[in-house]
Amino acid sequence: MLYVKTPEEVLALIECEFEPVASAEPVSLGAAMGRVLAEDIAAEECVPDFNRSTVDGYAVRARDTFGCTDAIPAILPLQGEVLMGEGADFRLNPEECAAVPTGGAVPDGADSVVMVEYTEDYGDGTIGISKSVAPGQNMIFRGDDVFPGKVILRKGRVLSSQDIGALAAIGRVQVPVVKKLTVGVISTGDELVEPEKAPGPGQVRDVNSPMLEAMLGAFGVNVIHYGIVIDEEALLTETVHKAVSECDAVLLSGGSSVGVKDAACRIIESMGSLLFHGIAIKPGKPTILGKAGCKPLVGLPGHPVAAYFITKLFVLPLLSRLMGRKQEIYTVTAKITESISANHGRAQVHCCRLERRDGLLWAVPIRGKSGLITTLAGAEGYFVIDRDCEGLPQGAEVQVTVTTGA
Amino acid sequence: MLYVKTPEEVLALIECEFEPVASAEPVSLGAAMGRVLAEDIAAEECVPDFNRSTVDGYAVRARDTFGCTDAIPAILPLQGEVLMGEGADFRLNPEECAAVPTGGAVPDGADSVVMVEYTEDYGDGTIGISKSVAPGQNMIFRGDDVFPGKVILRKGRVLSSQDIGALAAIGRVQVPVVKKLTVGVISTGDELVEPEKAPGPGQVRDVNSPMLEAMLGAFGVNVIHYGIVIDEEALLTETVHKAVSECDAVLLSGGSSVGVKDAACRIIESMGSLLFHGIAIKPGKPTILGKAGCKPLVGLPGHPVAAYFITKLFVLPLLSRLMGRKQEIYTVTAKITESISANHGRAQVHCCRLERRDGLLWAVPIRGKSGLITTLAGAEGYFVIDRDCEGLPQGAEVQVTVTTGA
Repeated sequence: MLYVKTPEEVLALIECEFEPVASAEPVSLGAAMGRVLAEDIAAEECVPDFNRSTVDGYAVRARDTFGCTDAIPAILPLQGEVLMGEGADFRLNPEECAAVPTGGAVPDGADSVVMVEYTEDYGDGTIGISKSVAPGQNMIFRGDDVFPGKVILRKGRVLSSQDIGALAAIGRVQVPVVKKLTVGVISTGDELVEPEKAPGPGQVRDVNSPMLEAMLGAFGVNVIHYGIVIDEEALLTETVHKAVSECDAVLLSGGSSVGVKDAACRIIESMGSLLFHGIAIKPGKPTILGKAGCKPLVGLPGHPVAAYFITKLFVLPLLSRLMGRKQEIYTVTAKITESISANHGRAQVHCCRLERRDGLLWAVPIRGKSGLITTLAGAEGYFVIDRDCEGLPQGAEVQVTVTTGA
Repeated sequence: MLYVKTPEEVLALIECEFEPVASAEPVSLGAAMGRVLAEDIAAEECVPDFNRSTVDGYAVRARDTFGCTDAIPAILPLQGEVLMGEGADFRLNPEECAAVPTGGAVPDGADSVVMVEYTEDYGDGTIGISKSVAPGQNMIFRGDDVFPGKVILRKGRVLSSQDIGALAAIGRVQVPVVKKLTVGVISTGDELVEPEKAPGPGQVRDVNSPMLEAMLGAFGVNVIHYGIVIDEEALLTETVHKAVSECDAVLLSGGSSVGVKDAACRIIESMGSLLFHGIAIKPGKPTILGKAGCKPLVGLPGHPVAAYFITKLFVLPLLSRLMGRKQEIYTVTAKITESISANHGRAQVHCCRLERRDGLLWAVPIRGKSGLITTLAGAEGYFVIDRDCEGLPQGAEVQVTVTTGA
């Protein structure tokens, strides 16, 4: 007998039953955006590799400027000039100064840079300095940004543009990332037709396959779509076997009839083990999870909205686990514009629009008969009401997961 | 004379000076994820196109079940059975019932469906019903989801996976989206070398180009990189002219010397108009915006962290304007783990890590000398302290824009 699991139990089970399986591959820096880092990245050199000015001005020993003012400037002979992109090929003498551009090298012997605004070139080979500087002022020392051995990015991180910048800074133009997973999507159900076809009597278009392909693709996995399989167990078995042999994970989706659900359970059991059948969440209860070897097989509910939320809430975390991907989902706090009733022992997911009124963010729950797909389409996000919650009054705060563009 | 603009003035100026320029193109549903919708999408048919059962059970007239109980079931002759994916080719007679699967067609004449759990098949051609249903119960009526003319998605929306599902549901397999913009990136500065090269004395790697390419690519624009141009005005002028002729917008980036900045200003003025030179924000003050015809030219600060924030805060909104892209950025509320000092009249951007402690979300400001790029790399997001804010105490709430994976 298999019991219905709570959402927390499902997430714990995923951590327990599955392990990171994806291997690493090197990609160029230009292809690394959004990929999952396969190992910790440590710098191998100093950045910057020289003492660097952060302003246009004159490199000095700070002590030679102490006490100077507009009225009594420090007057220092100009020893030389550092050119942009070139090293400082001299050592600054005490009580002298050297011209340096922003980003230029500060010569050894100098410990600070005076901004050009506080100086005057007397034209006789000396510079007047009207404001003192402290040691270290207006410069970055060699290795201030990174030094050899410093870990700058951790394994499992989803690389963002700022990370790409950091990798460029340390010269890591080949980046070890986790190989993309391949996920198979099988649509089942006698009532389904491809989205480009006009449905006949009693038929509807297959919504789940294109929706899942879009979501999984944006999540960074390759998707193989095995087409729509009619409700015939031998045919479905054959397709699932093929998909399991070709993919890292397989999603069965689209069938809502009892026959398909039962067949999915039998097929999963015959190929490995059935982990659970049913999650205490609405929509999405009739969800199946099993595994064939180390490969997960998920039977998604046929209802598109249910399939959507189950994929967001459980399948993406499952794929994250397989990829060793570490990315927390952050939620946005908003107040609900209307009260929400009790959930009768099941967690409940609500689609919502987000609206700003008087500087506050409001979540407008979208109510649709059975939560149809087009209600989802107008949504900016969703929030989950806990199973123990007996309902929420208007104005109560909820945590909204934003879904626009995802 | 050009004055420094506040961040709000810059955003208002962008709205005022630039207009949507991108034209539309049709793409297949499979390629529409993340693209910007070029027109409102209305349904052309009903979804579903037939009355549909949401459960496995028996289609009935609700009134024929009123008053029935476990003890005194309503007994209705079974008129027929509807098969999955086929139409109901008969009209239900009063005081009879018809078997229907989940998702199957409900025959005309029926107004509700009794779940199979509350029925008993007596095997003699009659079905016992032990629980009454209300009209409309357990079914979706034709057009409940969408009806012809109903707008389901608005122009300017960034298509998400739920939208792809909705488009599939109404059979829109060719989607009118905004053509991708092409943005040119020109790196300037004598001190820059390509990331794959080892910097010589006084040289640093070009961080901004790969960072900008990653950010802009993830934002959905094509990027042309014009390479690193040395600080020579004639050469820079030629490259900017070429980029303006080939792109919808041009970013000059990487040069931090006064010479490059002045040259950028002169070039922009010679090609059109300089809109402003300087934003009251830290980091990022030395930002230039101009336009050549309707094409924006942005002079980014050379400092990678400044270039990063200016691009996030102003260049992406500028590109959104050109694309007619409507996507609000939602922020996450977090408490700061340490006090933040005053900003002296400039808005200030702080990188932060996000940490959960005792159920609360904390923003840990990352302090690095001059906000170097590798401090950004470890960040999960950033928050902006307003120019009028005199500082924030530990525990104060800030609004964090999450940047992981973006």
